[in-house]
Amino acid sequence: MAAKDAARQAETDRRFMAAAIRLSRRHLGLTATNPSVATLIVCDGVIVGRGVTAIGGRPHAETQALAEAGDRARGATAYVTLEPCAHHGRTPPCADALVTAGVARVVGAASDPDERVSGKGYAILRADGIEVTEGVLAEAAADMLAGYLNRSLKKRPEVILKLAISADGMIGRRGECQVAITGTQARLQVHMMRAECDAILIGVGTAVDDDPELTCRLPGLEARSPTRIVIDRSLRLPPSSKLAQSARDVPVLVAAAGDADAGRRAGLAAQGVGFLAVEIDETGRIALPELLEDLAAQGTMTVMVEGGAETAAHFLDEGLVDRIALYVGPGTVGEGGVASPLDPSDPPEGFRLVREATFGNDLYREYVRTR
Amino acid sequence: MAAKDAARQAETDRRFMAAAIRLSRRHLGLTATNPSVATLIVCDGVIVGRGVTAIGGRPHAETQALAEAGDRARGATAYVTLEPCAHHGRTPPCADALVTAGVARVVGAASDPDERVSGKGYAILRADGIEVTEGVLAEAAADMLAGYLNRSLKKRPEVILKLAISADGMIGRRGECQVAITGTQARLQVHMMRAECDAILIGVGTAVDDDPELTCRLPGLEARSPTRIVIDRSLRLPPSSKLAQSARDVPVLVAAAGDADAGRRAGLAAQGVGFLAVEIDETGRIALPELLEDLAAQGTMTVMVEGGAETAAHFLDEGLVDRIALYVGPGTVGEGGVASPLDPSDPPEGFRLVREATFGNDLYREYVRTR
Repeated sequence: MAAKDAARQAETDRRFMAAAIRLSRRHLGLTATNPSVATLIVCDGVIVGRGVTAIGGRPHAETQALAEAGDRARGATAYVTLEPCAHHGRTPPCADALVTAGVARVVGAASDPDERVSGKGYAILRADGIEVTEGVLAEAAADMLAGYLNRSLKKRPEVILKLAISADGMIGRRGECQVAITGTQARLQVHMMRAECDAILIGVGTAVDDDPELTCRLPGLEARSPTRIVIDRSLRLPPSSKLAQSARDVPVLVAAAGDADAGRRAGLAAQGVGFLAVEIDETGRIALPELLEDLAAQGTMTVMVEGGAETAAHFLDEGLVDRIALYVGPGTVGEGGVASPLDPSDPPEGFRLVREATFGNDLYREYVRTR
Repeated sequence: MAAKDAARQAETDRRFMAAAIRLSRRHLGLTATNPSVATLIVCDGVIVGRGVTAIGGRPHAETQALAEAGDRARGATAYVTLEPCAHHGRTPPCADALVTAGVARVVGAASDPDERVSGKGYAILRADGIEVTEGVLAEAAADMLAGYLNRSLKKRPEVILKLAISADGMIGRRGECQVAITGTQARLQVHMMRAECDAILIGVGTAVDDDPELTCRLPGLEARSPTRIVIDRSLRLPPSSKLAQSARDVPVLVAAAGDADAGRRAGLAAQGVGFLAVEIDETGRIALPELLEDLAAQGTMTVMVEGGAETAAHFLDEGLVDRIALYVGPGTVGEGGVASPLDPSDPPEGFRLVREATFGNDLYREYVRTR
């Protein structure tokens, strides 16, 4: 009987935690240097309070959920997708807020790699006699928090490589503007991914050939466009490009060598384009690990690499890709095609498949690095 | 005789390290998330290479100094104001670069609180048989690196409170625009301090009353103006203010409560003003510790608080001031004066005097927090 109750409780916990993880997705890419986490306050099986990290990173999810729950938080269960914070600012840490609100039980998913927090949030709760269940749907929560966890542990952002590949393994045709490899549904998905990232990165070749704007153009999500980064060693980004022209509206950062044309740099800067300080590696290219390290130090948690083939290969060669979002279209490019750095038929080495879907006629496969 | 040689060597080390520390000052406030450090390569008592962290934070000082020294680095002594970095990106760490260049001896000042670096840089050098002398003028070097060390250790920027006080202990007169309390030389010093900080912070009262621009207007240093931050709970910053009007040229960040007027927020955003996400503390004010934590997470190392009295008192009350730059003018303000939160005759409690100077008729005293 007790075993049956426990199984039912575990099932209930998973159900509410899954809902909390879905809610946490809402502000992905919008919470600056803080993770997008969610809290649900559940009283007698009914959700009486919900919170997700506010846009910009504050207030935290817990305080918002507790505010909504009010008195009904007393004796309730709180579902948190990440261990509650325990370090004191002037406002009390979220762990203390849960104690003060009189919550009876806290169910947590992912644990915090921040050494100021790890284990301390749960310890505050337990010290007050609150029942704590850790690690419910921990993997799913960690997947949603991959950018934050990556930045905390590796001091660099999570790098997501997005590739759209034709059935014959091409990503486009040489000397031509963007070739439509995938259909409308897949393209909408890509815009959604953009909205959830902190930054999009391309090589200057793609900027020159395709003149993309790289903004999120989903209705209602226009304001969620991430920072756009161009790897551009010799500073070839045209002042007339859509990227440069829109730099006042959505930030553009260019990674160019220190010896690049100063006049051109000044002109782009006057258009509102920013510049990243870079190092040049022994192959004469922009050193990507240092670039990523600097981006993380500035708070960037997720970077989506959108092409072209050379830039994708550079990130893959350096072992810097954490996640691959692969779209495979039904058509062929044929003669004059630019080969993808990945073979669509083989899973990439060192990665494991975590998701598979069909968008219209396109296949979607998502891979995560195995170590 | 050996003792005499050792004393002479120690004296030489201090002399070159002092020169390196002076050089490291050059890029204070300009090196993004990296510290402004300097390296001198000395061969037979002659400086054959010098480097300071490049604007933007890369390349590091060591690689630049070694590049200038070329072959003359072999058998030379390197003076570094901070332990050389040891963590691998794709470009080799600076400790390896010193080994490869064949340097015979490395003299270091401050040690790095970054746990990826601490002790590891020196260990790489010693493992290769390089003689290492640590801690030469460590305190002076740490003082120059205070912002970086503060951010690494406390996860918040160094807060420098600047106060200009009249002989009768006032910082200005109620209801009037800026009263000149100090003379030209002191004001030039303040502009120099601004150039060396990452951000300047004021309360909205000062923004409304004085309409300051808060840029660095020293000839040749105009491009070094730091980000300007306004504490503005109810979003009162006028769209016509010099700060809002110049937001496209030098960044302006406003810390306003989430419930502040949305229309006003949108208008300022359209002028290029940015917003910080904030929490409100139990006194109904913007929570400063969380604000500082977020700024540090975005890479800010030094914030100069420039007024007014209320904002200064708020930072002092919360124990968040790390350094006080106090200017005392000879004149009196008298009737209707706004009292300084600090008494110019008494040293502030919990601080010790580290510098004293006279600029024209003004006294300058610099205090550092004792713990």
